[in-house]
Amino acid sequence: RIDPDRLWSSLMEMAQIGPGVAGGNNRQTLSDADNEGRHLFRRWCADAGLEMGVDRMGTMFMTRAGADPDALPVYIGSHLDTQPTGGKFDGVLGVLAGLEVVRSLNDLGIRTKHPIVVANWTNEEGARFAPAMLASGVFAGELSLDYAYARTDQEGLRFGDELQRIGWVGEEEVGARRMHAYFEYHIEQGPILEAENRQIGVVTHGQGLWWLEFTLSGKEAHTGSTPMAMRVNAGLAMGRILELVQAVAMENQPGAVGGVGQVTFSPNSRNVLPGTVVFTVDIRSPDQAKLDAMRARIEAGAHEIAKELGVGCAVEAVGHFDPVSFAPELVERVRASADKLGYSHMDIVSGAGHDACWVAKVAPATMIMCPCVDGLSHNEAEDISKEWAAAGADVLLHAVIETAEI
Amino acid sequence: RIDPDRLWSSLMEMAQIGPGVAGGNNRQTLSDADNEGRHLFRRWCADAGLEMGVDRMGTMFMTRAGADPDALPVYIGSHLDTQPTGGKFDGVLGVLAGLEVVRSLNDLGIRTKHPIVVANWTNEEGARFAPAMLASGVFAGELSLDYAYARTDQEGLRFGDELQRIGWVGEEEVGARRMHAYFEYHIEQGPILEAENRQIGVVTHGQGLWWLEFTLSGKEAHTGSTPMAMRVNAGLAMGRILELVQAVAMENQPGAVGGVGQVTFSPNSRNVLPGTVVFTVDIRSPDQAKLDAMRARIEAGAHEIAKELGVGCAVEAVGHFDPVSFAPELVERVRASADKLGYSHMDIVSGAGHDACWVAKVAPATMIMCPCVDGLSHNEAEDISKEWAAAGADVLLHAVIETAEI
Ligand SMILES: NC(=O)NCCC(=O)O
Ligand SMILES: NC(=O)NCCC(=O)O
Repeated sequence: RIDPDRLWSSLMEMAQIGPGVAGGNNRQTLSDADNEGRHLFRRWCADAGLEMGVDRMGTMFMTRAGADPDALPVYIGSHLDTQPTGGKFDGVLGVLAGLEVVRSLNDLGIRTKHPIVVANWTNEEGARFAPAMLASGVFAGELSLDYAYARTDQEGLRFGDELQRIGWVGEEEVGARRMHAYFEYHIEQGPILEAENRQIGVVTHGQGLWWLEFTLSGKEAHTGSTPMAMRVNAGLAMGRILELVQAVAMENQPGAVGGVGQVTFSPNSRNVLPGTVVFTVDIRSPDQAKLDAMRARIEAGAHEIAKELGVGCAVEAVGHFDPVSFAPELVERVRASADKLGYSHMDIVSGAGHDACWVAKVAPATMIMCPCVDGLSHNEAEDISKEWAAAGADVLLHAVIETAEI
Repeated sequence: RIDPDRLWSSLMEMAQIGPGVAGGNNRQTLSDADNEGRHLFRRWCADAGLEMGVDRMGTMFMTRAGADPDALPVYIGSHLDTQPTGGKFDGVLGVLAGLEVVRSLNDLGIRTKHPIVVANWTNEEGARFAPAMLASGVFAGELSLDYAYARTDQEGLRFGDELQRIGWVGEEEVGARRMHAYFEYHIEQGPILEAENRQIGVVTHGQGLWWLEFTLSGKEAHTGSTPMAMRVNAGLAMGRILELVQAVAMENQPGAVGGVGQVTFSPNSRNVLPGTVVFTVDIRSPDQAKLDAMRARIEAGAHEIAKELGVGCAVEAVGHFDPVSFAPELVERVRASADKLGYSHMDIVSGAGHDACWVAKVAPATMIMCPCVDGLSHNEAEDISKEWAAAGADVLLHAVIETAEI
């Protein structure tokens, strides 16, 4: 078993970096705080005898040598970046549990046949630069390096420039690594495990996702002296599209979600009807057909709504991945490890996107989940218990040992 | 008659200060550009022999002495501040036409019995600091100086501090001045005069207004892993309230408008349902009963919408004035001046708020309007012709001479 106190104290120490305003974290990707977090992780890894490789997307790969020099490594990965008002565990738990697995193997003097690599993927959150899971998307060959480097944040800063600025452009070609297997341990970010009173989620599938960025073009005009009939009201069109997204998601229950987290009015002045409204619709489902039908209905409906108001409407997909099935033999190994350790468990579908979803395209991959309080995530109040954290890390340790072979 | 070329070239010179991004202006109140604009106006006034007084709200009063030292002055006022993406004429025309009236009187060697004062009111637009017409509101005794100084912009900067910073805190007590009459000349900012093919709008009334700032409190949560049934969706509530505002305005046609220009999501991240959505509803009508009924219906409806979604809902009135009737004798004088000069005219209600609306509480006041292209205002593309500008300034000159007496 891993050391629960050591894992927990590492989590708490990392949470000191990029503190939020309400007990959580703001350690957005490629910020100074991200850089600081990377250095702390690097120091911990060096202390544990791991060797660092960094690729051109800034992803950190920390290697514990294996007994067989020809054996492909077993990877344990997640991310240290957070939302602007994020929690202390989303992503961080997976990376530091990987480190804890290595520390435990060191303590026990266990040498595995396959090397073990703990990975910190760059820009998993997608909060600062869309899309999410950017580095793993390039790694899997689904997104190009040029595309990734050209992503911009709300201030117009480019991903490539910011990666350079914080000093984490590595030498390695992205995606050159081959993997024997990939594990990712994460908090559920949803309410199911807690409600069902299970310690471990055995993740069989992940939802697919579309991020649809709408740009609505209205006519900037005075809110007081512009008669109702003369308005080209992009804000009203946005309101109606939000209602449509809700309706489409509700029609597809169960097994689908839809919502909007980002809305920007320009010029955003109280007495000016907006010239432009930009917002992103986030729709998800584990069912490919449902997901694509939802997208089609929302796009068509939005164009109708805009047309009726005379508003211009452009849609760009700024994020997308298909529903994913994880590698059955690894899923079974996670299930067996939980059984062996006596932890209650259930099969579960990941509601959030994870780097594992991209890695699954190029290697056998799976995930392990632990509950989180009230299913709350992407919120500074996100919380888990030390015992929950430890149970999943134990399962990770056993599944990794099985896979990396003693 | 005034000098159309001189008026136009002054307008174009002022438009050099705080240029916008699309041919208009960004000379928001208490910005460095506002300061620069004030200095240019001050220099022009000094050249025309006017003496400056500045009150504690930073409003500039430029006085041309009258023949009778005991006669109260006739005021001509408007504002040099603009929206963030504003036009070259909104407000500026009124101030510089006032200056043009004085220059014309100087050219003609006309001395009036009553002094003439050209005023530049601080923060008419209310774009940076709500409410609009802030300085004239304090002047009229409807708002307190403390209230005004404590207003903050989106970056949290205080009005009082910014007024100090640009160096325009005057000595004069606000509202100490008494007025014989007040005239304000402004572009219509609506489509009626152009559609009716009239050169002059004789402004008989002004619409009343409510700015209702809604703060909706939802639950920050992951857009992917939070089931629909667990969402506390403040964004959706906002969308529904926008639809309600539209419906209430449409039910009150003709003679009412309603819309939303400012919406802010927090944390405004694509995959986080917003914890907070703040937005301002702007409703107006020249009919007091209609205006108050609209406010009541929107507030009640919004609370219902929020309650149904479990969303918290707080409303604050951040701007308000009642419908206003302008002084009949001054209105008649404007109408007669237009007739005498042979300009086509019609009676009109001001759709926008103006400093004249507050001044009307403490002095006989009225307004003159000229058409603007496509009724467009609060838009960098706002436009008028030199001839339109000149016609209204001629009417202003005659009405002022009649009132100030030769
Ligand atoms: N795990 C997680 O929150 N990832 C961010 C990508 C997403 O929105 O699902
Ligand atoms: N004239 C003008 O645009 N004033 C700003 C106040 C308002 O919103 O009506």
